[in-house]
Amino acid sequence: MPEHISKQFDLELETIRTRVLQMGGLVEQQIRAAMDALQSGDVDRLDKVVADDTKVNALEVQIDEDCQHIIARRQPAASDLRMVITVIKTITDLERIGDEAQKIARVGRTMYQTGRYPAPRFREAAKMAEVALGMLHRALDAFARLDATAAIELAEQDLLLDQDYASELRAQVTFMMEDPRTISMSIDTMFICKAIERIGDHAKNISEYVVYLVKGKDIRHTSLEDKKRESLGDAATQ
Amino acid sequence: MPEHISKQFDLELETIRTRVLQMGGLVEQQIRAAMDALQSGDVDRLDKVVADDTKVNALEVQIDEDCQHIIARRQPAASDLRMVITVIKTITDLERIGDEAQKIARVGRTMYQTGRYPAPRFREAAKMAEVALGMLHRALDAFARLDATAAIELAEQDLLLDQDYASELRAQVTFMMEDPRTISMSIDTMFICKAIERIGDHAKNISEYVVYLVKGKDIRHTSLEDKKRESLGDAATQ
Repeated sequence: MPEHISKQFDLELETIRTRVLQMGGLVEQQIRAAMDALQSGDVDRLDKVVADDTKVNALEVQIDEDCQHIIARRQPAASDLRMVITVIKTITDLERIGDEAQKIARVGRTMYQTGRYPAPRFREAAKMAEVALGMLHRALDAFARLDATAAIELAEQDLLLDQDYASELRAQVTFMMEDPRTISMSIDTMFICKAIERIGDHAKNISEYVVYLVKGKDIRHTSLEDKKRESLGDAATQ
Repeated sequence: MPEHISKQFDLELETIRTRVLQMGGLVEQQIRAAMDALQSGDVDRLDKVVADDTKVNALEVQIDEDCQHIIARRQPAASDLRMVITVIKTITDLERIGDEAQKIARVGRTMYQTGRYPAPRFREAAKMAEVALGMLHRALDAFARLDATAAIELAEQDLLLDQDYASELRAQVTFMMEDPRTISMSIDTMFICKAIERIGDHAKNISEYVVYLVKGKDIRHTSLEDKKRESLGDAATQ
């Protein structure tokens, strides 16, 4: 990022970047807490995840306001403007990841309260969550280090996570057919896996905003080949 | 909106507003086409909905670029800046509504291809879709007319839509328990209803951005009471 005549402006940009990373850290914590509590059956902790989503929301509103103040007062151009727009988009995805963590906690709470939870406690969901958490961490890291190459990795990992989700759905359908008493439990498990799969989508989105930030190119809605070309530079394909 | 010395700037702002409404219209069409084809079993039309999502995506990217050019060149302040930020946020939600329409079409296509679709063809889903379409239409109308009061209505309708979705889930669980051969069909139907329920969420989001645009207040993540106070003005509660 270029240096500005106004040190104050640099500081403001640095502050919103730091806040995004704080928000990302909080969201990671929320997912981890939801998954741990889901596996241990800790309903109090699930309650806490549900309640703590307000902290994620508050951060989104605050960072959003900071961005708008910067646009209004500093009239940023070029890469500074891209940074602010990237932050505005990124926090929307982080907020929605927070919602998914809350959803996991809500569903889990209902499952324990009704005594309908799977005996091998959410083993597949836990594996999927590790992948999604890895993706989120990589996306935040890419944002922190302005690393446009993460988008490729994340697009590939997202495909794998989608496949894991699809095979988990098939497995749950088989369980339900074998023993219809497990239907409610299986459906709840499917919704937990769906929430995890969405976390992967949002992490992928964030990594695509970073490509826009660094390269000035919008690679959303493009094929994996196009993403490779844009994020690695033209050399990769010429 | 205030008038500007530069007629050209007025024209640019008007153009992005018009494009948002065009994008909204396209997204409404996509939902309607998906639901009609779902009920009639028109697989070709479902294919078309899936394919046409690229048009929605292209509009998002284009409007996004327009907004960034306006910020960079015009350095908008106050209500103009809020308009541009509102557009950036609104098109993200519209694009995701487009994704949900595509999801409905994809799931429907699989159901017809495998011959597993409900005999009373998606009656509940169709009712839910009418509510969601009404919400989207109201939200776009609020955006066009800068009407901050729509947010209240939409928050209330969204609660009702969530209830419809929850009772449809319960109904599907009952079907599955009664006849496990319907499990795959019921799960697909649940995912279609889930997509419709999300469309309602996105419509609600859009109406909340309009409150921010008109009143300068961020009412996301607030209670229905707070939303009423902010969107109707202080008079309502004092």
